[in-house]
Amino acid sequence: MSEIIELARRARVASYALAEASRATKDAALHAMAAALRANTDAIVAANAKDVAAARDAGTPESTVDRLALNPARVDAMAAGLEQLAGLADPIGEVVRGYTLPNGLELRQVRVPFGVVGIIYEARPNVTADAAGICLKSGNAVLLRGSSSAAASNEAIIAVLRDAAESTGLPADIVQGVPTDRAAVKELMQARGMVDVLIPRGGAGLIQTVVSESSVPVIETGVGNCHVYIDAEADLDLGLEILLNSKTQRPSVCNAAESLLVHASVADEFLARALPALAEAGVTVHGDPKVVAASNNQPPAGAVVEASEEDFGTEYNSLDLSAAVVDSLEDAVQHIRRYSSGHTDAIITRSQAAARRFTTAVDSAAVVVNASTRFTDGGEFGFGAEIGISTQKLHARGPMGLPEMTSTKYVVTGEGQIRT
Amino acid sequence: MSEIIELARRARVASYALAEASRATKDAALHAMAAALRANTDAIVAANAKDVAAARDAGTPESTVDRLALNPARVDAMAAGLEQLAGLADPIGEVVRGYTLPNGLELRQVRVPFGVVGIIYEARPNVTADAAGICLKSGNAVLLRGSSSAAASNEAIIAVLRDAAESTGLPADIVQGVPTDRAAVKELMQARGMVDVLIPRGGAGLIQTVVSESSVPVIETGVGNCHVYIDAEADLDLGLEILLNSKTQRPSVCNAAESLLVHASVADEFLARALPALAEAGVTVHGDPKVVAASNNQPPAGAVVEASEEDFGTEYNSLDLSAAVVDSLEDAVQHIRRYSSGHTDAIITRSQAAARRFTTAVDSAAVVVNASTRFTDGGEFGFGAEIGISTQKLHARGPMGLPEMTSTKYVVTGEGQIRT
Repeated sequence: MSEIIELARRARVASYALAEASRATKDAALHAMAAALRANTDAIVAANAKDVAAARDAGTPESTVDRLALNPARVDAMAAGLEQLAGLADPIGEVVRGYTLPNGLELRQVRVPFGVVGIIYEARPNVTADAAGICLKSGNAVLLRGSSSAAASNEAIIAVLRDAAESTGLPADIVQGVPTDRAAVKELMQARGMVDVLIPRGGAGLIQTVVSESSVPVIETGVGNCHVYIDAEADLDLGLEILLNSKTQRPSVCNAAESLLVHASVADEFLARALPALAEAGVTVHGDPKVVAASNNQPPAGAVVEASEEDFGTEYNSLDLSAAVVDSLEDAVQHIRRYSSGHTDAIITRSQAAARRFTTAVDSAAVVVNASTRFTDGGEFGFGAEIGISTQKLHARGPMGLPEMTSTKYVVTGEGQIRT
Repeated sequence: MSEIIELARRARVASYALAEASRATKDAALHAMAAALRANTDAIVAANAKDVAAARDAGTPESTVDRLALNPARVDAMAAGLEQLAGLADPIGEVVRGYTLPNGLELRQVRVPFGVVGIIYEARPNVTADAAGICLKSGNAVLLRGSSSAAASNEAIIAVLRDAAESTGLPADIVQGVPTDRAAVKELMQARGMVDVLIPRGGAGLIQTVVSESSVPVIETGVGNCHVYIDAEADLDLGLEILLNSKTQRPSVCNAAESLLVHASVADEFLARALPALAEAGVTVHGDPKVVAASNNQPPAGAVVEASEEDFGTEYNSLDLSAAVVDSLEDAVQHIRRYSSGHTDAIITRSQAAARRFTTAVDSAAVVVNASTRFTDGGEFGFGAEIGISTQKLHARGPMGLPEMTSTKYVVTGEGQIRT
């Protein structure tokens, strides 16, 4: 038996015990894990120092090293995250719907765990504790496949979490690490029937690989080519503030805006204010010919460049923004249908009709009226926890909290009913 | 551009109009389709006669020919099915959850169509109208890939449905047929991004092919290796009646029982009654050594044969039944975990503790207490319509009605909120 199949088999066995664990048991385990992370801060930081040193030796950019690095404050934040999960309602056992059939059968659709979940993720080792905690609370055994650059950190964290789980009576195998070599991840992606769902968390390349190579059902997360559309009837002050917030408040994340569309009737006025403000914020605008024309002589050289066709389909994750002038709301809708990744798209308008048309016609995980794209987030949506933001239509769409990490089953109770 | 990509592109365009269609528009289209099917009964039956003749020429078994054959009564039943859909609530636009966030943002999770759905199915041409109707009512454009043996029937039905849709103002391309050659279905399975979900309906072979070869998200349906477990505390009269109903009321379908487990403490008494009754009903029992021993000299020769390991994993869809004696409820659970396809598993017991343990520990789409496995069905569950029975854990599990044919999106409405 291959190592991955054996890991998955042990996860399945552990998942049976976890599926039946009470909320009290699961919350006790989360608190024990949090306490253990804090108690083992030195060991975790020391293991992390090896990963950091190796990353620096390999010439990794300092921004990536920073995401990888742990210190006592970051370990404490991981622990606090687990404690926060303990405070959330248990999704398992919730009766999603239920009624009595005409023949007297009692039908209940009840929330149950998936069983075994695989998470494939990149550098940040805090995801290890985060994903383990969310899977535990939702009753799922988890196989954690982090990046090789964080291998020592993840190994240390997983060892602490496993011990803590076991100390509260749950099987250690509810949390397992997966080897970071390529062969292991390939096997994980082919473990259909052994692993119930795979969730990739990371950049577009990672997600594309998992989506196309996996025979295990996948929940696709996180690619965000998000649009802000300034309507003919927009409040331009409000539009400018929302655009700047959407683009610059945290440009590296999936709910940051990547593309600006402006209705032709307000384009001159809006761009005359927006282009200098964007330039001032350090944003490079990749504009269509009308945007480039509007920029004449206004912003500093290089702040507005000509957009290629490719720009409009690009998730920059940086201080870059594609921009185009559209002749109508319908043209904005068409543009978004063509280029959006279906994550978050916003309209700025005072018109009820335009808002209604936009929210109906644009089919993205989140459609926003008069607010920043940055709100598409499990924390902001009040979910208390988030495993990622689904950009697919099957199962879950948008931020995924605890209920999205579950399936359901029907429990049918009778007193001898047969079909005639 | 390939033919399939072009079909999918046209379906996408049509899906935008359908997604915005009111319930009144959709119901009018369903009624128009029903009327058109009735008005074109002769043409449809004539087209079907070609398929039937070709099937007979090819030596197709008469039971398969019967499933393929249409007559005026069957066409009328197809029409009635569409009319029934018109009477069901529209799932689109339902607010699944909604609240106001602390910052004043109004959050609404709203049910929306998938967009473009592909259905891959086998012989019975009534599925063509049925699937088209369910997709229409749930706001989805549909690509229908029926079997080549029903090609003339399906072509005739689809032409009638398209004309009727168009006559009520919807695009004809909300319903399209897909060529029945192998290359076309392969392309359909690779049309990720163009087709939102694929649903195979048919035998295990078809479903396995689609699940393993498709890069489009799939909802797996219908394989049912269903168990009836007679507990130590079962009412044996009730158990026998339920077993016979589960096995013999309609043995060819996925919710028929395929395997019997009997607790050792009641095995002699139960099998002494069940084996002759099963033999009388024409059932061949594939028993483990204890069942074979229990059968000594009682039933007619050949009614009980020795089971192989493979028998316990087999969905017979015929008057065959695997059977084993288990030493405990836990052993029954272990057996079911090992062999069940996760469709429907039933316990017969008077014990509240046993019922609770079984429904908790057995993780199948439907877990039944003291009733026939045959109730796992969209119609029986009161859904009014069913596109299939999902045996996967992602998105939908168990019978899928109209809400299971949808996704959701978040609509976020603000008045200038930004993140700080």
